[in-house]
Amino acid sequence: MSQSTWFTEAHAASGSSIGFRVEARLHAEKTPFQSIEIYRTTDWGNLMVIDGCIMLTGRDNFLYHEMMTHPALFAHAAPRNVAIIGGGDCGTLREVLKHAEVESAVQVEIDERVTRLAERYFPELCESNGDPRARLLFDDGIRYMRDRAPGSLDVVIVDSTDPVGPAEGLFNAAFYASCYRALREGGILVQQSESPVAHLELIRSMRGAMRAAGFPAIHTLPFPQPCYPTGWWSCTMARKGGPLEGFRERDAADKPFATRYYNVEIHRAALAQPEFMRESLRA
Amino acid sequence: MSQSTWFTEAHAASGSSIGFRVEARLHAEKTPFQSIEIYRTTDWGNLMVIDGCIMLTGRDNFLYHEMMTHPALFAHAAPRNVAIIGGGDCGTLREVLKHAEVESAVQVEIDERVTRLAERYFPELCESNGDPRARLLFDDGIRYMRDRAPGSLDVVIVDSTDPVGPAEGLFNAAFYASCYRALREGGILVQQSESPVAHLELIRSMRGAMRAAGFPAIHTLPFPQPCYPTGWWSCTMARKGGPLEGFRERDAADKPFATRYYNVEIHRAALAQPEFMRESLRA
Repeated sequence: MSQSTWFTEAHAASGSSIGFRVEARLHAEKTPFQSIEIYRTTDWGNLMVIDGCIMLTGRDNFLYHEMMTHPALFAHAAPRNVAIIGGGDCGTLREVLKHAEVESAVQVEIDERVTRLAERYFPELCESNGDPRARLLFDDGIRYMRDRAPGSLDVVIVDSTDPVGPAEGLFNAAFYASCYRALREGGILVQQSESPVAHLELIRSMRGAMRAAGFPAIHTLPFPQPCYPTGWWSCTMARKGGPLEGFRERDAADKPFATRYYNVEIHRAALAQPEFMRESLRA
Repeated sequence: MSQSTWFTEAHAASGSSIGFRVEARLHAEKTPFQSIEIYRTTDWGNLMVIDGCIMLTGRDNFLYHEMMTHPALFAHAAPRNVAIIGGGDCGTLREVLKHAEVESAVQVEIDERVTRLAERYFPELCESNGDPRARLLFDDGIRYMRDRAPGSLDVVIVDSTDPVGPAEGLFNAAFYASCYRALREGGILVQQSESPVAHLELIRSMRGAMRAAGFPAIHTLPFPQPCYPTGWWSCTMARKGGPLEGFRERDAADKPFATRYYNVEIHRAALAQPEFMRESLRA
């Protein structure tokens, strides 16, 4: 493979593509769930691709992992018990475990191979996997949430692939109802919700399904993510009781751990809605 | 050209690429300054490419044009006289003229063909070109700024291509000194400043040159821009006297014109600095 080879994901639905210059394909396999490839890029560290879709690069995943974690955990008064659905690369788990209030964090990834390859090719994301508060399950996240005891969780983070294939069942009211039941009062569900510019209808539909499942407060937070279609991504938070606009600003300002994107200003900024989103999501 | 053809810009410096699915190449020419191509895309409206670099699409240029204009104009107490250096597609001019306080707006584009092609392929961006307050010059922006009377402008917007080729001289202290001199006290210079993730060194260097030219207050505002490398872009504002954090929030909230990205919340949000930028630009 020559130095001028590129891995490009052509995103048919939006008619746009993102690519990275790669030096070598380090790994390729078909698991029972999907195909996984790992590339070494020239400028973005290692690159994981699942079913042809770019999942993460070593260089820009901090944006996604921090935004999937810290706004929800600092919006919660005392996030003790956290479940991550998906998230097999362990980057979200690492961010969650930075919070000293967290007593348990369970990661429920359906495909163990994602985690095994992350351990090998993204070891920095897996550095907290041995934390005694962490538990790694390789199981179906839909069933896992259905089986939780009511009111047993403070935060549920849905860190999944797109709503096609294995992740499809993570984007409907039945799944959100399981999450609602499993959360304590004041508990927060946060889910990756695709591109504000390319997937606004999906965001509307997710928010409708979250509302149908009982969540009274819902907020979509945009953030940059160069490796995903359009380079602009979002997560959507839903809360069982209590608003989503406030957060523990003092704790966030005094946080005893490092971040690269997130800080108090960025948390407030992510709550701002671009005018077209405000208009479209008002309904 | 088949329906599955893509126009892709491989950005060598960052090892990343952006592409759009195109249906037809509508136009191609070499001007005395550069090569210009126009494509019709499947999902992003028309696409303008200069010297192989994507300049704008019909669908996402509102992000860039609004952020190049409204934060600076609402940060200024009374923006009466505005100069746009570059900006040949006329989208920034259109946004500037939405402000009733503006008495004159001069656009100084070096390549008249950019504007002529915008009139044909992006007519919506040119809809205010006939405004009696507007003046379109086709001239060298560096010389234009050098020749301004001291204290004759309130806002200078540098809406240029990347700092190579014709635009190179727009990114140094000599040019910024011309801008400083031409601005009244409280005047604002705003310039597109590339990607926060791919061009942080350039941003640092621009800010250093602005400081060297006499500007005491400097602030870099990130915003999403799917068609530019990494999908994440920025503008840098510099002010001759007065801070950049505040703005006419009441006027921005009551603005009598429509925007699609910009609003009061987004203005405040754009002032937030991601942690890695805060650390890198602190010096």
